Amino acid sequence: MKSIGFEHVTLRRGLLAEKERLSRRKTIPAVYHQFDLSGRNAAFSFTWKEGKPKQPHFFWDSDVAKWMEGAAYSLRRQPSVTLERKIDALVEKIEKNQREDGYFNIFHTVCEPGTEWTDRNHHELYCAGHLLEGAIAYFETTGKRQFLSCMEKYMAYIRDVFMVKQSAAFVTPGHQEIELALMRLYRLTKDASALELARFFIEQRGNNDKDKDIGFGKLYAQDDYPVREMREAKGHAVRALYYYSAVADLAAETGDPALLETCRAIFKDIVTHKMYITGGLGFPHGEAFSLPDYLPSDISYCETCASIAMVYFCARMQNIEKKSCYADVIERELYNGILSGLSLSGDAFFYENPLGIHKKARDAAGRVVRYSAITERVENFSCSCCPPNLCRFLPSMAALLYSVDGGDLYVHQYADSEATVDGMTVSQQTAYPMTGDITIKAEGASRLLLRIPGWCEESFTLDAPYTIENGYAVIENPMGEIHLSFQMKPVLLAARAGVADCEGRVAVARGPIVYCAEEVDNGEDLDALYLSRRFRARVRREPAFGSMPVLLTTGYRRRASASLYERAELAEFDETEIRLIPYACFANRGPSDMLVWMNAR
Amino acid sequence: MKSIGFEHVTLRRGLLAEKERLSRRKTIPAVYHQFDLSGRNAAFSFTWKEGKPKQPHFFWDSDVAKWMEGAAYSLRRQPSVTLERKIDALVEKIEKNQREDGYFNIFHTVCEPGTEWTDRNHHELYCAGHLLEGAIAYFETTGKRQFLSCMEKYMAYIRDVFMVKQSAAFVTPGHQEIELALMRLYRLTKDASALELARFFIEQRGNNDKDKDIGFGKLYAQDDYPVREMREAKGHAVRALYYYSAVADLAAETGDPALLETCRAIFKDIVTHKMYITGGLGFPHGEAFSLPDYLPSDISYCETCASIAMVYFCARMQNIEKKSCYADVIERELYNGILSGLSLSGDAFFYENPLGIHKKARDAAGRVVRYSAITERVENFSCSCCPPNLCRFLPSMAALLYSVDGGDLYVHQYADSEATVDGMTVSQQTAYPMTGDITIKAEGASRLLLRIPGWCEESFTLDAPYTIENGYAVIENPMGEIHLSFQMKPVLLAARAGVADCEGRVAVARGPIVYCAEEVDNGEDLDALYLSRRFRARVRREPAFGSMPVLLTTGYRRRASASLYERAELAEFDETEIRLIPYACFANRGPSDMLVWMNAR
Repeated sequence: MKSIGFEHVTLRRGLLAEKERLSRRKTIPAVYHQFDLSGRNAAFSFTWKEGKPKQPHFFWDSDVAKWMEGAAYSLRRQPSVTLERKIDALVEKIEKNQREDGYFNIFHTVCEPGTEWTDRNHHELYCAGHLLEGAIAYFETTGKRQFLSCMEKYMAYIRDVFMVKQSAAFVTPGHQEIELALMRLYRLTKDASALELARFFIEQRGNNDKDKDIGFGKLYAQDDYPVREMREAKGHAVRALYYYSAVADLAAETGDPALLETCRAIFKDIVTHKMYITGGLGFPHGEAFSLPDYLPSDISYCETCASIAMVYFCARMQNIEKKSCYADVIERELYNGILSGLSLSGDAFFYENPLGIHKKARDAAGRVVRYSAITERVENFSCSCCPPNLCRFLPSMAALLYSVDGGDLYVHQYADSEATVDGMTVSQQTAYPMTGDITIKAEGASRLLLRIPGWCEESFTLDAPYTIENGYAVIENPMGEIHLSFQMKPVLLAARAGVADCEGRVAVARGPIVYCAEEVDNGEDLDALYLSRRFRARVRREPAFGSMPVLLTTGYRRRASASLYERAELAEFDETEIRLIPYACFANRGPSDMLVWMNAR
Repeated sequence: MKSIGFEHVTLRRGLLAEKERLSRRKTIPAVYHQFDLSGRNAAFSFTWKEGKPKQPHFFWDSDVAKWMEGAAYSLRRQPSVTLERKIDALVEKIEKNQREDGYFNIFHTVCEPGTEWTDRNHHELYCAGHLLEGAIAYFETTGKRQFLSCMEKYMAYIRDVFMVKQSAAFVTPGHQEIELALMRLYRLTKDASALELARFFIEQRGNNDKDKDIGFGKLYAQDDYPVREMREAKGHAVRALYYYSAVADLAAETGDPALLETCRAIFKDIVTHKMYITGGLGFPHGEAFSLPDYLPSDISYCETCASIAMVYFCARMQNIEKKSCYADVIERELYNGILSGLSLSGDAFFYENPLGIHKKARDAAGRVVRYSAITERVENFSCSCCPPNLCRFLPSMAALLYSVDGGDLYVHQYADSEATVDGMTVSQQTAYPMTGDITIKAEGASRLLLRIPGWCEESFTLDAPYTIENGYAVIENPMGEIHLSFQMKPVLLAARAGVADCEGRVAVARGPIVYCAEEVDNGEDLDALYLSRRFRARVRREPAFGSMPVLLTTGYRRRASASLYERAELAEFDETEIRLIPYACFANRGPSDMLVWMNAR
């Protein structure tokens, strides 16, 4: 089974179409501008000298490479001479400054020459991977081979250093990424040496004596087990998920059942024990997966990149496994963990997407007394991996909607769209997720498979005969318009008994969208707000929040007593209207406390 | 108004009597033994040399001094030649090693000679204060003047250095304690120079340009305001409360209304905004008072010393103000925040008394991922201030029971006891706090004032005519047996709306005793236990927990769902018996999770 590439899918209107447009009009130009200001673009000229400002960091290559990849996707959607020139200018610098032998890395050439491949945590292979992905995307869009040729030369060199000469100080990358990039190169060129090098990095990991701890212990870098023995998601979430994505690719290409078993076990571990309700992954200790069932709101640390990486992993798995659980997670990430990383204006970002914000997190002396994320989005970070990741994710996310497997046409995600590929066409007319009604037309498919989201359980209607297969409603020989309707009633959700900080609390969701309360709507002390256990909410569209509605519900605010402790039975509650906004829209109206897991009575 | 000294009060039976006896039989010998093992006692020989093990720390003098003070109290209760000889041996070393000019400090003599009074945070004045308190206690018990003379000489020297020559690198101590010790000396000897020096340290604090920040900012060391402008409890809790105690002493001696106003405001600030339900004070950032209404269970950091220091402050205030709110807090501290610091066996300790313990606080790599106190009591700490503080607190706590003011006899705390002083006698026959029934006889008093605890509100009976005055039931010309009875029904308590981590949860108390659930009784995942909102509990005496009963109640355990998130309305609960033990008895049966603030439904 293969996804229908984003280039064959048109997002016509609605939330995803708006975000795709926003990324083209605002995000991609804004991130480029920030990379001008921070010196990232100029660093590609290799002219930095000791003592000058804006010293290149060893991960800057990857930031710009991700931007180039995103710009290439954007170009494919809508040609732009200006944008193409910007990429070309960078490509020229890459070609000019690539070493004779193929090596390319700004930091290890201009800042610390002669130190290449000495520090496993210096992200050289990670940067190489992102550059390769950028080169592939640019080639696929423009047909220009220049950037890709440079990177093929670089890969041949890396293969020589790591597989033949084994002259590097380490065997596998400190930060994975190159593995999945190589798999992508293999799929494009069918060059077996790319597959071989990817397999080498994947299989050597946790399986050799030369790789040294890069800090935080072996599990931080997924060094604790060889790939076929891994069963749990552990360590740095982004590194791990890029790795698992490559493992899924290798499993798909080789049919190796042990690799697939690793991927299945890890997916199950994440969704059963380690994923916040927003799809967020991780906590501040090493930006890593948390302990099982330890999902503390107040130190949640959900990097936008981790959610994007989780989508990459799930998108691979859904094509291998053909089960709806993967698209369910993609949907959760899409509408919550990922879109939360971007401001509504499209040009400011969160790196970590917390489950709660507490402005009063510092004492009078300014010391942090309570862990809290930043309270306002910013335009650039010193470690600015998330903004360019959104640049490449948003213009290509249309690829998440459909897959084709012989005559089977899968609809994974719902959005007003049309797609044509291999003699098949499919279209959806819908305001989803604003409403749950979808009209689908499919031609040329022998079977149409429509995902029934996990959140809607039994509450959907479908006006064609169907059977359920792996979470998809299967319609044989689909003809004419098919009407599918999901009940989108706002509901209260609970976490499994004993999950840290969630016990006794509830979260609100409507369809795939998780909600939160902000101080700017509801006043201070969000913890003292109580939703009604007989929860009902009005759904209201507000232009400020685009195609996601806000919810209004009648709840309670507990009155503050004069004394610090009192008999529980004396607690007094005042009825109050509580306004909930989509979680993905938090922190767009100035500093404000925010809360996902709320009290209820 | 003056407290009846502990030497005039006999604790006959019941909880406090047991703990007093335990301190004499176990705690005081055990701490001495640990101080032998750690080298603290030997350090008084001044023979440590560079390169030898067990280098004296700059706070060791104070540890041993507190033990000496406690041993002196214990001696007064029950003479012991062995114990007296141990103290005498230490006193001889002090006399022998005191410098000609009066200076005495182990660290600054044997480890870093020539550096005295150069580092404000090196606890020299703090050690001097504790030595002085030890000397006073020993003189009062034995009439031997040797130790007291040494310390009077030291105080004269300190007065010369700080008030006359002003030759120290700082003006006021980094860690307060000497102020209250000097006030005590003044009360013993009526030597005006002691009062003068105490006043100097109190009034100069936050009021001079020479004192430098000792880390964590000015408020950490109560350097942010001169004493008469202070209105909030801030900074290191123990330092602050020793200071406030001395301020209360100075207010009492001088009648200065501005000093009293400071004490009143600070007391109100603490009890209204900064005290855990156990009486605990502080959080881990600088062992300091937390932000107002920020009392997070999972990072609670309630040093035993802070609770003891709070009692010292309140005991002074109750004699000045004659209001029951102070004895209420003393009772809360006594039965919860202080006794929790000592194992039931009497020889192991907690330094911090948390509101919850989570054994699973480390990830697979051993990194702390969730703040948690140690899970088992230990016999000694490297910074072992709390054990010797218990050594001096427990044998002298009988002084908290009664005060006399002319013909007024106050009963602040209830315990089976008798006291005779100045022609008055008073006795209580009671199993309190096991039951709430107390039979009181008082002779020679014109008025008997019985505290009606804040926790019992209206639910008490008293078989003599009374009026209520400042929280005390006042009986004119008390005659014969008076029967007072408090309803001791176990109840659910709630914290004020919005208090961090407590919102939506309840704590259980019976009379003055706060309860907790332990894993060892209730299984894992204490957060998944729900008390019934229609709470009823059986009270059961279990010998293992001495004179505090355990509670048994029927509650619920939420079943763990297969999926991580589910509709809140699908939550399933199984009825289960929940066993609650007195908070002060936690962590006496091996490592175990523990929880005070529980869910309820």
